[in-house]
Amino acid sequence: MKPVIAITMGDPAGIGPEIIVKALSNPLVNRIDRIARPVVVGDRGILERVSRRLKSSCEIRTLLDLETIRPIRTALSVIDLKNVNPSDFVIGQASAAGGQAAVEAIRKAVQLALARRVAAIVTAPISKEAVHAAGYPYPGHTEMLAELSGSKEVGMLMVSPPRSKKDFGLRILLATTHLALRDLPGQLTRERVGTAIRLAHEAARGYFGIRRPRLAVAGLNPHAGEGGLFGREEGEIIQPAVEQARRDGIPVSGPFPADSLIRRAFEGRYDLVVAMYHDQALIPIKLLGFGRAVNVTVGLPFIRTSPDHGTAYDIAGKGMADPSSLVEAIRLAVDFSAKKKL
Amino acid sequence: MKPVIAITMGDPAGIGPEIIVKALSNPLVNRIDRIARPVVVGDRGILERVSRRLKSSCEIRTLLDLETIRPIRTALSVIDLKNVNPSDFVIGQASAAGGQAAVEAIRKAVQLALARRVAAIVTAPISKEAVHAAGYPYPGHTEMLAELSGSKEVGMLMVSPPRSKKDFGLRILLATTHLALRDLPGQLTRERVGTAIRLAHEAARGYFGIRRPRLAVAGLNPHAGEGGLFGREEGEIIQPAVEQARRDGIPVSGPFPADSLIRRAFEGRYDLVVAMYHDQALIPIKLLGFGRAVNVTVGLPFIRTSPDHGTAYDIAGKGMADPSSLVEAIRLAVDFSAKKKL
Repeated sequence: MKPVIAITMGDPAGIGPEIIVKALSNPLVNRIDRIARPVVVGDRGILERVSRRLKSSCEIRTLLDLETIRPIRTALSVIDLKNVNPSDFVIGQASAAGGQAAVEAIRKAVQLALARRVAAIVTAPISKEAVHAAGYPYPGHTEMLAELSGSKEVGMLMVSPPRSKKDFGLRILLATTHLALRDLPGQLTRERVGTAIRLAHEAARGYFGIRRPRLAVAGLNPHAGEGGLFGREEGEIIQPAVEQARRDGIPVSGPFPADSLIRRAFEGRYDLVVAMYHDQALIPIKLLGFGRAVNVTVGLPFIRTSPDHGTAYDIAGKGMADPSSLVEAIRLAVDFSAKKKL
Repeated sequence: MKPVIAITMGDPAGIGPEIIVKALSNPLVNRIDRIARPVVVGDRGILERVSRRLKSSCEIRTLLDLETIRPIRTALSVIDLKNVNPSDFVIGQASAAGGQAAVEAIRKAVQLALARRVAAIVTAPISKEAVHAAGYPYPGHTEMLAELSGSKEVGMLMVSPPRSKKDFGLRILLATTHLALRDLPGQLTRERVGTAIRLAHEAARGYFGIRRPRLAVAGLNPHAGEGGLFGREEGEIIQPAVEQARRDGIPVSGPFPADSLIRRAFEGRYDLVVAMYHDQALIPIKLLGFGRAVNVTVGLPFIRTSPDHGTAYDIAGKGMADPSSLVEAIRLAVDFSAKKKL
């Protein structure tokens, strides 16, 4: 039986509804119907409007009972929250109405995932500004999903799928995410690095099905500090965290200089890399991802993936948004749901 | 007339002599003789020993007069400094003797370059440890070359050549280099960023021959600080430096989030990127460089390029070192010497 995948609609003023319609209805782009039973969680009226604007032949069906989803190439199933009034927002602009609708879709999807009625959640982009305008303090999806599911330790894993048989793609888990660089050394603790290593191990085994994964940890400083010449965090924080993880039975090495480590991971010498900060991971992921990179939240009691881009307000409503990253996020969620045994 | 390129031998205990012999004598690897008149500055005895060990058919000729260099595929010309005694060092280990010999070769090459007797210098790798053991305080080539030539403002430019007609490679100039990440925000000043922008402009015009280059500057923080949410250096330091450069007539934009900027540069939308720190530049350069990345020092009164790797003591003497990056460094030096009008 194909897994049921919940896709949250995201901010109605962004490109979320458009890439969803494209991903689920264009058989030239992909064939999601062959691998999954997708269900959109959001507002049917918005999806219909977008579908008309795209001149899509896609039929939109309201789903009353999840069990009745059948994967049909030319139809899109939606759990209609009936929660967006088109006059309450402007395409390409953050609004409280858009933020509220986005949060409601995520809540509903989390309920379904916790009740095991869907195998995974794939989230279309939300606007932090809109979510804040609606009165929610969340900095992003990850924190919201962690809170709604009562998860304490979550991590952001970026996946750039292989592009050919000659490369291995990249999988990088971030020890820290949206921090000013100035605050980074102070926030990097042994606990934080240790948690990231544990989550990386869990993801490599549970999501990618690698029994004994080869994990490696990047340094914080250039040349991983070159023996303390430019920075001591490697010796004082990262190395002890790596050693503790090894004592706990996790096969992990490092810290290594980030530049050569990421190159070696790309060559297939490591299954998963733990990066210390945002750009250390996102620079190589975006460079190789070619619009197909996927963001995975590790540590939740359910599978969650998302495209690696935002609402892209600047191109919303123009019909030019590329659904590739969303398609890849759905594919990865399907893969994970076949392997995950947590 | 083909340009004369001085190649310093580097640390005798590292892979420098080996990659030089390979680069200059193996017509299957490349044909440097078709584009340049290369001359090695170093110790003839070491080069002969390496050549024998590699079973190279290369003939090594001592050059008494620079003007007599002729590019010959099967011969390697050397300015013999007669400054290495094989019993004074062990292959694969840093030594004062090796450091001393490396420094002497660089000094000689700088003399030749300042006297305009060579068109460019290409440097094989040195060991910082060996140079320190010989009593010199230089942290690396760049500082040594700056001091020997009396240059005040120099910059490190990393070049990853295009691999096919479909990509544009990457050119990234670093505003800071070997600094602990903790010290980075404090060291990043408007002056420093402004200097980097000027040097990037100079390199794009003088070295790459782009009359009106498209230059872009990366932010320091994730998402370039996202409007001050994670860091203020973009608004307080980088943005003012960019604006000042524009007032000075330099076509430059930014700061932009580093991850998407580097991707866009790779797609050909910028000619040269200014990065704020080491790993921001070196992660994508090493990822794309495939062992062919080149390090260029900008701001010297002569052209200087080098391979992007070190002495690689762990594989020295084993015959397995890859000369690709050195070959690319020589090619780039030749290209630059045809374009540079400073």
